[in-house]
Amino acid sequence: MSLHLTKDDLPDLARGAAFLGTGGGGNPYVGRLMVERAMDETGRQLELLDVNDVPDDALVIPTAMMGAPTCIVEKLPQGLEAASSLRRLERHLGKEAFATMPIEAGGVNSMIPLVVGLRLGIPIVDADGMGRAFPELFHETFHIYGVSGTPMVITNDHDDQALVDTHDNYMMEWLARGLAIRMGGVAYIAEYPMDGRTVKRTSVAGTLGVGLKIGRAIREAREHHLDPFDHLAATLAKTSYSPARVIFTGKIVEVFRRTSEGFAKGTVRIQELSASPAAEPRLLEIQFQNENLIARANGYVLAVVPDLICILDAETAEPITTEELRYGQRVTVMAVAVPPIMCTPEALEIWGPRHFGFDIDFTSIAQASDVAEERTA
Amino acid sequence: MSLHLTKDDLPDLARGAAFLGTGGGGNPYVGRLMVERAMDETGRQLELLDVNDVPDDALVIPTAMMGAPTCIVEKLPQGLEAASSLRRLERHLGKEAFATMPIEAGGVNSMIPLVVGLRLGIPIVDADGMGRAFPELFHETFHIYGVSGTPMVITNDHDDQALVDTHDNYMMEWLARGLAIRMGGVAYIAEYPMDGRTVKRTSVAGTLGVGLKIGRAIREAREHHLDPFDHLAATLAKTSYSPARVIFTGKIVEVFRRTSEGFAKGTVRIQELSASPAAEPRLLEIQFQNENLIARANGYVLAVVPDLICILDAETAEPITTEELRYGQRVTVMAVAVPPIMCTPEALEIWGPRHFGFDIDFTSIAQASDVAEERTA
Repeated sequence: MSLHLTKDDLPDLARGAAFLGTGGGGNPYVGRLMVERAMDETGRQLELLDVNDVPDDALVIPTAMMGAPTCIVEKLPQGLEAASSLRRLERHLGKEAFATMPIEAGGVNSMIPLVVGLRLGIPIVDADGMGRAFPELFHETFHIYGVSGTPMVITNDHDDQALVDTHDNYMMEWLARGLAIRMGGVAYIAEYPMDGRTVKRTSVAGTLGVGLKIGRAIREAREHHLDPFDHLAATLAKTSYSPARVIFTGKIVEVFRRTSEGFAKGTVRIQELSASPAAEPRLLEIQFQNENLIARANGYVLAVVPDLICILDAETAEPITTEELRYGQRVTVMAVAVPPIMCTPEALEIWGPRHFGFDIDFTSIAQASDVAEERTA
Repeated sequence: MSLHLTKDDLPDLARGAAFLGTGGGGNPYVGRLMVERAMDETGRQLELLDVNDVPDDALVIPTAMMGAPTCIVEKLPQGLEAASSLRRLERHLGKEAFATMPIEAGGVNSMIPLVVGLRLGIPIVDADGMGRAFPELFHETFHIYGVSGTPMVITNDHDDQALVDTHDNYMMEWLARGLAIRMGGVAYIAEYPMDGRTVKRTSVAGTLGVGLKIGRAIREAREHHLDPFDHLAATLAKTSYSPARVIFTGKIVEVFRRTSEGFAKGTVRIQELSASPAAEPRLLEIQFQNENLIARANGYVLAVVPDLICILDAETAEPITTEELRYGQRVTVMAVAVPPIMCTPEALEIWGPRHFGFDIDFTSIAQASDVAEERTA
């Protein structure tokens, strides 16, 4: 069943995409403006195609922004870069794309495929290859379940372009990352070209729809003076992203962030506000590489990848992306369990805690008690 | 008039190519082995085509190794990488190449196109795009006289490949260099595809033939107990590389070399041996970036790019490449004037002394007296 979106849905979708981005995926506001402009200029409607409605033999080419989210807010795209990558890949493959889709369900990368779909007049599949945002191009269910990322195309805002073919998806990430850095820190890609049958087998289904629901829930809570975190958890309980739970509330007391090797890496520390004057206030530390990877308090892990760790404004529940973290912000941190396709042994091999250098096994917050039992090594 | 080469010519050609490489262009021995193997395996003859015999509308695709010469001796190529780049570019252009040619007349890069020609059964044009070796892909007469370097293809020994299209040749160098680094420090390219008319207008003609003459002269001097430097100067006097002159003889007392940003950069210091015990011995300092760029003694510039600065074994006149410089070697340094197409104002804009950060005008050793008058700023 197709989902038709209007311009009024875009703020909700952008907000929900920022939530699923868990800090990464780039500023959704920039992406929203790009979608609005594409709707105005093309006069086209936004059609999100249910993954089951994609013909088995149809060519689908996912599109995305690649680079440091800290760069995209400084270097705005023209809006045609990702479409140019897709067109170039079509010429190389000698076949037109039936549809495009997101590679990740986060921030600007939920929006880029909408821009591509509108500009080229093709539908967007309501699914993605991460189910959230992740930093690297092999952090994709497509890779996990055996799809080749190449041939892929990368384009920048000067229409410099490279068509890359590699012997595996790690080399694709390595070369494309190098190109994105030399293209100015941000570039636009078309990768993992595949048929509809493969999309159904390997993608995380319905994530644009989930994003829309999240964004709406946050807005509705504000409009109807509900507790946004309760309302969010209740909304997510009806999706494959469940349970969702508040793990911490406090004030940001330290942000350490650097842009290195094409990523925004760092740590944010959040201090509890409600502690009694006598007691030492509890401190939550979240480490990120574009996305929030692990949340620890007093040496205990409260949540870890691939579960979502979402830093939200403590009043409005507005998601705060990595590049927008500031000293003094009052925030509430939610942890959210992710769909089963993202937690298989094959998936945890690629994006479990050990992949990011944390010496612990993955425990979903679905299994964990209020304070998780895992202790870092 | 075509030049037909036998296997016996290869050591001479490799030696001459190392001379024209002025320290850069990679180890010619590795290249020679690749050519010999290609002759053995294909049973084909080596045909060097005079630039005037290339039809005006024929497609010529230059091929080369790209990266740090320090890497090629550690990471031997399979021999098919550059041919794979050319074939990929042919498919992209939808036209077969009539011939290939070198982009530089130095070291391994005089040999790579011979390997490609043999493997693919196409002739090699006796001309190149530098007239020597230079470190970067826009250091080419093709670039200087208006040819686009892209579309270009870069391939490594795992058959990872990228087809690059850029808005100018500087961006091509920037992206291709990044790819070469991430491909392991050395990769194989096909670039500046052009027609025969353009080859005639923009290339430095006859440089493979000149290399062969240089290599032969060095060998003949040994065989007939002639002074190799006099014999070299006399041989070069009959070519467009003239005059050639010894500017220093001594012992290497210091080599500072690092592989950085994909280049072998550094300095070599050579101390005069013949000074009287009382006198302070004269010291020659040569700075290099893959190739030797400038030779100074006591603050005076004795030779500078684009003139050739060749470090040769003091006994045998065997050229010594950058990565082979060692403490204690007895060396003679020759400076050689280069053909007019390499010294036009347009050419000096691209590869004159100021381009490499030296605050002096170019004075050819053809104009300079025994000790040059230029003083560094």
